[in-house]
Amino acid sequence: MASKNLLLLAGDGIGPEAMAEVKKLIAAMNVKLGSGFITDEGLVGGCAYDAHGAAISDADMAKAMAADAVLFGAVGGPKWDAVPYEVRPEAGLLRLRKDMELFANLRPAICYPALAASSSLKQEVVEGLDILIVRELTGGVYFGEPKQIIDLGNGQKRGIDTQVYDTFEIERISGVAFELARTRKNHVTSMEKRNVMKSGVLWNEVVTQTHKARYADVKLDHMLADAGGMQLVRWPKQFDVIVTDNLFGDMLSDIAAMLTGSIGMLPSASLGAPDAKTKKRKALYEPVHGSAPDIAGKGIANPIAMIASFAMCMRYSFGMVAEADRLESAIAAVLDQGLRTRDILSPGMTEVGTTEMGDAIIAKF
Amino acid sequence: MASKNLLLLAGDGIGPEAMAEVKKLIAAMNVKLGSGFITDEGLVGGCAYDAHGAAISDADMAKAMAADAVLFGAVGGPKWDAVPYEVRPEAGLLRLRKDMELFANLRPAICYPALAASSSLKQEVVEGLDILIVRELTGGVYFGEPKQIIDLGNGQKRGIDTQVYDTFEIERISGVAFELARTRKNHVTSMEKRNVMKSGVLWNEVVTQTHKARYADVKLDHMLADAGGMQLVRWPKQFDVIVTDNLFGDMLSDIAAMLTGSIGMLPSASLGAPDAKTKKRKALYEPVHGSAPDIAGKGIANPIAMIASFAMCMRYSFGMVAEADRLESAIAAVLDQGLRTRDILSPGMTEVGTTEMGDAIIAKF
Ligand SMILES: CC(C)[C@H](C(=O)O)[C@@H](O)C(=O)O
Ligand SMILES: CC(C)[C@H](C(=O)O)[C@@H](O)C(=O)O
Repeated sequence: MASKNLLLLAGDGIGPEAMAEVKKLIAAMNVKLGSGFITDEGLVGGCAYDAHGAAISDADMAKAMAADAVLFGAVGGPKWDAVPYEVRPEAGLLRLRKDMELFANLRPAICYPALAASSSLKQEVVEGLDILIVRELTGGVYFGEPKQIIDLGNGQKRGIDTQVYDTFEIERISGVAFELARTRKNHVTSMEKRNVMKSGVLWNEVVTQTHKARYADVKLDHMLADAGGMQLVRWPKQFDVIVTDNLFGDMLSDIAAMLTGSIGMLPSASLGAPDAKTKKRKALYEPVHGSAPDIAGKGIANPIAMIASFAMCMRYSFGMVAEADRLESAIAAVLDQGLRTRDILSPGMTEVGTTEMGDAIIAKF
Repeated sequence: MASKNLLLLAGDGIGPEAMAEVKKLIAAMNVKLGSGFITDEGLVGGCAYDAHGAAISDADMAKAMAADAVLFGAVGGPKWDAVPYEVRPEAGLLRLRKDMELFANLRPAICYPALAASSSLKQEVVEGLDILIVRELTGGVYFGEPKQIIDLGNGQKRGIDTQVYDTFEIERISGVAFELARTRKNHVTSMEKRNVMKSGVLWNEVVTQTHKARYADVKLDHMLADAGGMQLVRWPKQFDVIVTDNLFGDMLSDIAAMLTGSIGMLPSASLGAPDAKTKKRKALYEPVHGSAPDIAGKGIANPIAMIASFAMCMRYSFGMVAEADRLESAIAAVLDQGLRTRDILSPGMTEVGTTEMGDAIIAKF
């Protein structure tokens, strides 16, 4: 049996509370189903800075590189607002993405039927929504050099970031998008700003070539990223898979998540390339939401995004498709039952805390 | 009396149809009110490329530099999708912005009460919405160098764009935002990605300093741009003035425009710094919508955004505040009357074409 070594990096804020529910689930699966997960833990973000002076220690980074999959909570909080740029909490997450070469970030934006009414969008606009944003995660303006602040003298400084994309980076992320589209509605929309950015011109060109050479059976559209943002808000159901760069993906996936009214519920997967020999991909799974320091430690955080991230982990890292399906159904069932954490509470529903929500999902699983 | 020389650059697609309505209005004002507007015309975008092989000719560029204000329609269309990057239609607009040093782009997102129901957002979320996006327009990734595609050999290319901001650029755009906030609800939200971009770190620092030194009476918040996009979709009324960079401003202002359900209705102003002697600002006014090639020439385009852009022109370039107010009221009155172009048509309303809509607004003015 293939190994199932998980590294749990709960991070800051509500991260540990949400992760605690996944730990209960893993323990239950090991005992009742003999699932054989082996877990280890490490620090990332502000808590790692407090302990080691770095947003992730080299030791924990080595554990992440060796694990079959990493489960990540959330990082950051006002406590670390003034720490130096290089060791800010986010640097831990960025190092994990870069060193593990997790170039493909999969962000499903689905609207749980039970929550359609709680979106700020009209119910008919979001009901049944199921789109997948495939975001490039190891390139672009996040990592390009030069990236610096220069003192020009005279009280003037210059802030510089560099957006860089190479052909192979665009090719591999669009390959992931096309492959996934084939398992869905077979439709990819590529978004960039080719009208102002040279990286956008190249993006458009390479996606078009990749499509022609290997995925001509998939429907492909191109949209300018600003128009794409508008269309997401106007009629999101026109999309199936959206493929875009690191920064546009950051913005667009957050907007897509917010449309669903379920931001506390949405998981994500960050995947590397399959290893030439073992075919295994490095992988990290994390909720789309942040560390929510304002509600941390109160026992009211919504653990669903973290639990749904574990479902993605079972699906993509361990081929446990039946278990992933069952876990996702358990989440939907508990929502249908009327249980709600405070962030998604609506009149007539039953408010529960983090652990009760976790327990209810495990009971239905 | 100060001169009122206007250069009209109608551009492509629905630009000329929309501009025709403003021409009628200007003619009427000259005859009935002795407003004394003097107009000249030029080409920009695809039509300029067809005529001169450039997205704007040097002669028209010189006219724009000399005018008291430029009215701009829209540029682009499938006809010019394959023209070289340097002479693509958008290059004309970008050259106008850069050469005229129009660093301050003002994009009001208001929800006309008569249209609140036609937004994809719930009526209570957008009804009465009135926010102003102040977008930096001459810096950032739009103009930074290097900006190029390099052939790396081996079938690999590299696309590069550079995001650059200097202290003075951030200072002057935030000054505009704070000044405008004082005439509104006195609240500015600055958006960047300081957690991944050095230009964002500098942006945050300079906005904070400018606030402290000169605008401490204004309420200032900072938000990460991705979170800002989410908050715009969740509860846009939390904002008054949003100040942000060129690329984030492009995305966020389009999303804000779409929220209102009135994308065909929204104007924008792009302003330079006041001249040291004359105090006059160079200025260009344009609708937020694009050239809509699919409906061009059919007489069904909505001219309201173009007419509302002329209202902004009277307000900001000629101090004609009463006239601008009256024109904006005329637009609202015609909407209240139930007249609608096709893009904003809803059950029970009366569909009209471009010229009828223009005539109705002029009649109410
Ligand atoms: C925390 C931050 C660095 C990160 C990003 O910008 O990628 C986050 O917003 C995300 O989308 O995962
Ligand atoms: C046409 C294009 C170059 C332009 C931009 O990206 O600035 C447009 O989207 C806008 O927002 O005015």
